[in-house]
Amino acid sequence: MTTDPLVVFTPSGKRGTFPIGTPILTAARQLGVDLDSVCGGRGICSKCQITPSYGEFSKLGVSVEQDALSEWNAVEQRYKDKRGLIDGRRLGCQATVQGDVVIDVPPESQVHKQVVRKRAEARDIKMTPSTRLFYVEVAEPDMHEPSGDMERLIEALEQQWTITGVQTDLHILQQMQPILRKGNWKVTVAVHLGDAAHAPKIMHIWPGYYDGTVYGLAVDLGSTTIAAHLCDLKTGEVVASSGIMNPQIRFGEDLMSRVSYAMMNSGGDQEMTQAVREGMNALFTQIATEAEIDKALIVDAVFVCNPVMHHLFLGIDPFELGQAPFALATSNALSLRAAELDLNIHPAARVYLLPCIAGHVGADAAAVALSEAPDKSEDLVLVVDVGTNAEILLGNKEKVLACSSPTGPAFEGAQITNGQRAAPGAIERVEINPDTKDPRFRVIGSDLWSDEEGFDLAIATSGITGICGSGIIEAIAEMRMAGILDASGLIGSAEQVGSTRCIADGRTNSYLLWDGTAEGGPKITVTNPDIRAIQMAKAALYSGARLLMDKFGVDQVDRVVLAGAFGAHISAKHAMVLGMIPDCKLEHVTSAGNAAGTGARIALLNTDARREIENTVRRIEKIETAVEPRFQEHFVNASAIPNAVDPFPILAETVTLPSANFNAGAASSNASGSRRRRRRS
Amino acid sequence: MTTDPLVVFTPSGKRGTFPIGTPILTAARQLGVDLDSVCGGRGICSKCQITPSYGEFSKLGVSVEQDALSEWNAVEQRYKDKRGLIDGRRLGCQATVQGDVVIDVPPESQVHKQVVRKRAEARDIKMTPSTRLFYVEVAEPDMHEPSGDMERLIEALEQQWTITGVQTDLHILQQMQPILRKGNWKVTVAVHLGDAAHAPKIMHIWPGYYDGTVYGLAVDLGSTTIAAHLCDLKTGEVVASSGIMNPQIRFGEDLMSRVSYAMMNSGGDQEMTQAVREGMNALFTQIATEAEIDKALIVDAVFVCNPVMHHLFLGIDPFELGQAPFALATSNALSLRAAELDLNIHPAARVYLLPCIAGHVGADAAAVALSEAPDKSEDLVLVVDVGTNAEILLGNKEKVLACSSPTGPAFEGAQITNGQRAAPGAIERVEINPDTKDPRFRVIGSDLWSDEEGFDLAIATSGITGICGSGIIEAIAEMRMAGILDASGLIGSAEQVGSTRCIADGRTNSYLLWDGTAEGGPKITVTNPDIRAIQMAKAALYSGARLLMDKFGVDQVDRVVLAGAFGAHISAKHAMVLGMIPDCKLEHVTSAGNAAGTGARIALLNTDARREIENTVRRIEKIETAVEPRFQEHFVNASAIPNAVDPFPILAETVTLPSANFNAGAASSNASGSRRRRRRS
Repeated sequence: MTTDPLVVFTPSGKRGTFPIGTPILTAARQLGVDLDSVCGGRGICSKCQITPSYGEFSKLGVSVEQDALSEWNAVEQRYKDKRGLIDGRRLGCQATVQGDVVIDVPPESQVHKQVVRKRAEARDIKMTPSTRLFYVEVAEPDMHEPSGDMERLIEALEQQWTITGVQTDLHILQQMQPILRKGNWKVTVAVHLGDAAHAPKIMHIWPGYYDGTVYGLAVDLGSTTIAAHLCDLKTGEVVASSGIMNPQIRFGEDLMSRVSYAMMNSGGDQEMTQAVREGMNALFTQIATEAEIDKALIVDAVFVCNPVMHHLFLGIDPFELGQAPFALATSNALSLRAAELDLNIHPAARVYLLPCIAGHVGADAAAVALSEAPDKSEDLVLVVDVGTNAEILLGNKEKVLACSSPTGPAFEGAQITNGQRAAPGAIERVEINPDTKDPRFRVIGSDLWSDEEGFDLAIATSGITGICGSGIIEAIAEMRMAGILDASGLIGSAEQVGSTRCIADGRTNSYLLWDGTAEGGPKITVTNPDIRAIQMAKAALYSGARLLMDKFGVDQVDRVVLAGAFGAHISAKHAMVLGMIPDCKLEHVTSAGNAAGTGARIALLNTDARREIENTVRRIEKIETAVEPRFQEHFVNASAIPNAVDPFPILAETVTLPSANFNAGAASSNASGSRRRRRRS
Repeated sequence: MTTDPLVVFTPSGKRGTFPIGTPILTAARQLGVDLDSVCGGRGICSKCQITPSYGEFSKLGVSVEQDALSEWNAVEQRYKDKRGLIDGRRLGCQATVQGDVVIDVPPESQVHKQVVRKRAEARDIKMTPSTRLFYVEVAEPDMHEPSGDMERLIEALEQQWTITGVQTDLHILQQMQPILRKGNWKVTVAVHLGDAAHAPKIMHIWPGYYDGTVYGLAVDLGSTTIAAHLCDLKTGEVVASSGIMNPQIRFGEDLMSRVSYAMMNSGGDQEMTQAVREGMNALFTQIATEAEIDKALIVDAVFVCNPVMHHLFLGIDPFELGQAPFALATSNALSLRAAELDLNIHPAARVYLLPCIAGHVGADAAAVALSEAPDKSEDLVLVVDVGTNAEILLGNKEKVLACSSPTGPAFEGAQITNGQRAAPGAIERVEINPDTKDPRFRVIGSDLWSDEEGFDLAIATSGITGICGSGIIEAIAEMRMAGILDASGLIGSAEQVGSTRCIADGRTNSYLLWDGTAEGGPKITVTNPDIRAIQMAKAALYSGARLLMDKFGVDQVDRVVLAGAFGAHISAKHAMVLGMIPDCKLEHVTSAGNAAGTGARIALLNTDARREIENTVRRIEKIETAVEPRFQEHFVNASAIPNAVDPFPILAETVTLPSANFNAGAASSNASGSRRRRRRS
């Protein structure tokens, strides 16, 4: 009695015996091995490429002879001649089992391949895209068994791909009949596979075998910018990325001014809805042009945004979000059609919006949670997405808390005397010599420090135009470390500090960072109002985090993740000196980049992640800072630099902060401390 | 030990014991008694009115005391004062059980009431409308438990009405927040209850208790006319009916000329799609104006139509329907949104199209099957829907067969020398005296026969302008019975017949029905080409029916149902003399009126019937006459009057047909028989 040959698949390790002559694709399907195929084994699509291994595999207990697979056949040869095939590769639908064999499925032949994320600590994205391509052969119409062409197409999908309950939109019905005939009853269909609430749906249909792909968009709709990644739904690859300013800016710089605009102007919300949708369409046109693809091939889109953007994008008046109790119209994730939102991609494209966590903690925060997965963390992680509003998550596998805190635009360089957006010419890094009290700095556009040779030349084009968000944080933290600034936020006078860079400026002092007036440039100073603005912003951020720590019952966190573009440029040490973030080992403070955008991309490529984040959001405990009595107390304490009450013992191990107090000195009559006292009287 | 009181509901007969103090509505719900409520028992809607009965009910085994229910309360009194309440009625949510009681639920308090159909043999319609109203009290937003207003509304529907998985469209999200607040968190929502493939969906929302209703449309989209019934989805009542000409008529009178128009003119199909949708919208505006309702309250619509109308309405090129194998784009029932079809009713209104049976047997035939239910018939019934195309169903509980046959427009008075549409002035009934060979007739607009006193006066306004479809059938049948016409369809000469009304007319003879020339009117004759046209039409109809009888293995049917407007005016006896329909007892030939329209109305009001007809259609055996060899043979035989082969024994019991043969006589050189021979040579 001869036994059937053994087939072992790697990397899955799945194995089974199969009769001689079984195609490898068939064996893979029967074992549930993830081996792709669009044409269903007809030797057309070549998606099922595999690599047989020969020789002795003691670990697997298999010995593979040279004739373990059927000989190279005409279909494979034709494919190789036409398109090329990597040496050693075979087509899984053509090669048949002849003896024991070990078959490797390369990543590009896997449906659920992993898309590698760049950061080391990030989990890779498993591909389970919403929409896949299927090649089918459709039965021709028969007068004796009359049925619609669509019914026979759906039957083909069911019989050849076991996809059941497929539905379709009118636009497919309207174009399908000539396509079926053009393809001689062989067509490729893009099927949106649906979910618990939505049946699978035919999105597109091509005559014959369509050797292309379909695309999806991951969109991060911010108050200031709209950024989109165009992704190949087959490979997961980002084929183009692009961004534009949010055209709503003309109605107000920040969220609350936009809510006000809607309240003060009848139809104002609709104006803003139209503006953002038009901007979105301009962006999509731009990104499709860049990638040189037809916009109609974009069949899926995921959006993340804060609640106000969310409502305005959907055409919902954000009125209720402008006042307690900050009631969202809807907090659940939404599945819509692109056409409903006037988006000019595929007319039946699906649009997915992540759930909102609360009235102030939006789908963007949910996307950060999806990307950074605090709910899967063994240690206690604080995730902070810094923007004009900070979204804060604190948690581990046990539970996750969330809140938002109104940091205002100071961190983005707004409301700062010489502040500017991060752009060439902006001071982004600062060091102050504690002995001389003199600064050196770096400017966006050059890697040289200002005291290094060639700096003047390097910045000749951009000049030195101002200071950006990360620059002001470093400047203030350095001032604090160099004894120029005291814990209460007062800049010392020239006498107190012993530096002529400290200049009396009205009732307070300013610190001169750069005097460019000789070259016709600006004089860049850090003023006391700048310090106040940053104090307010960082106190808001810290007190939000502290409140969550209270609720969690901890005094310390294991690690801190800074999300957002700003978080990517911030120096952990300086942020901690400033008391922006809780005390923590510096090496445990990491940047996640645009985590909200990454979350959108995960939800786009891995539809399972959508259910996952919906469940996670449901379990997240929401803390409304506005009604928490301790928030105010934390805020007042956090106004000090780093903090009036909370010790920073880990920081103290590396940094010693001078204990200056400029309120009691010669400049006291000008200090804000005395101003405060006057106000109280 | 005292036992709980017994509550018996009529007419359901459901019974159970309940603790003293249980509201009748609660008892009804627990027993599954069909007692309506929109407000959920809050004493607002008064939909739960019931009538308690008092006294001895030996059949039910109950004795009801005067104090069996709680006393009349303030809520009931307020309602009675404000709106009135029929004597003896109570509100089921207010009256509580105090002793054994018999409770009658009047029809208007039943959700699934029966809508009575006018015809005696028709089954009544059970109300299970797609959309119902629900009053809910929604939890207010809470900062500590943030959730969207929509989520709390959906939760209220789930908790207060056990409706799960409710979804909503964007337009509801966009308007809901102010409505919730205006109603002080009490709202009435119209919920489309969904089906196997669609989740329940919120269609509309009103602040507080909405004391109105929502509407649906049953639309019969014919090639010539579009007719619509506007129905109250609560009561089932038809509140308005209206019709317009199909604006597509300008592209071609009949179906095939419209298909040709689409084939010959690029974009012609789209022109026709736009035309029919515009016509539809004009009709809907007209019907809503007539009923004095807001079109936005129309939340559901059911359409029936033939396959070509079906495709053109949906925006599908009917090209394939113009040629074998007559492939439909889709044959299944369709659920669409009104907006997809550019219909100006409620933006999220659901549109349901009944399934098509085959490429020539459309959703209109399915609607006839739903209305006339041959699949539920004990005896073998032939259902014929006569139009320019005849749809024919034959079946009983065992099985149902269907086909269509191209009768052409002759039955509608077209292609007839003096033919005209059924309108005032048209001869609609004819009798010919077999002795004198003189006719008398009736004209649309008057009940008098032409030989009755006052006839001239009665028709003075309309005149006598032509002969309509039912008139030509009666005329020809009467000519046959009076010996003016032979079985082959030849009109005898004056000599052969013995009447000067037979006039030589080219190579054949005509019969003079009316000479109005003296008064400046027309001379109305029945010509040999008229006979030929009707012979072709009736042969097509009969041979379709005969083919189905072959397939069924029978020579006779038990009854015949004539559907369609034409069927309503036709005389059974004359149709049978002509051999249009198979031999059958005359009293078993009935008219079903606009059965397709009735089917649409059933599908609108009883959503269960939709699943039912979808299943029925799937089981119906479709016969394509074009490819059946025996069809041609039946057609040739059926050209004779009544038939060259099939005997009509039942007809023969009441009618004796002369055995004239005008081919062999003096007029032979003019007869078509000789013409035929010449052609063959």
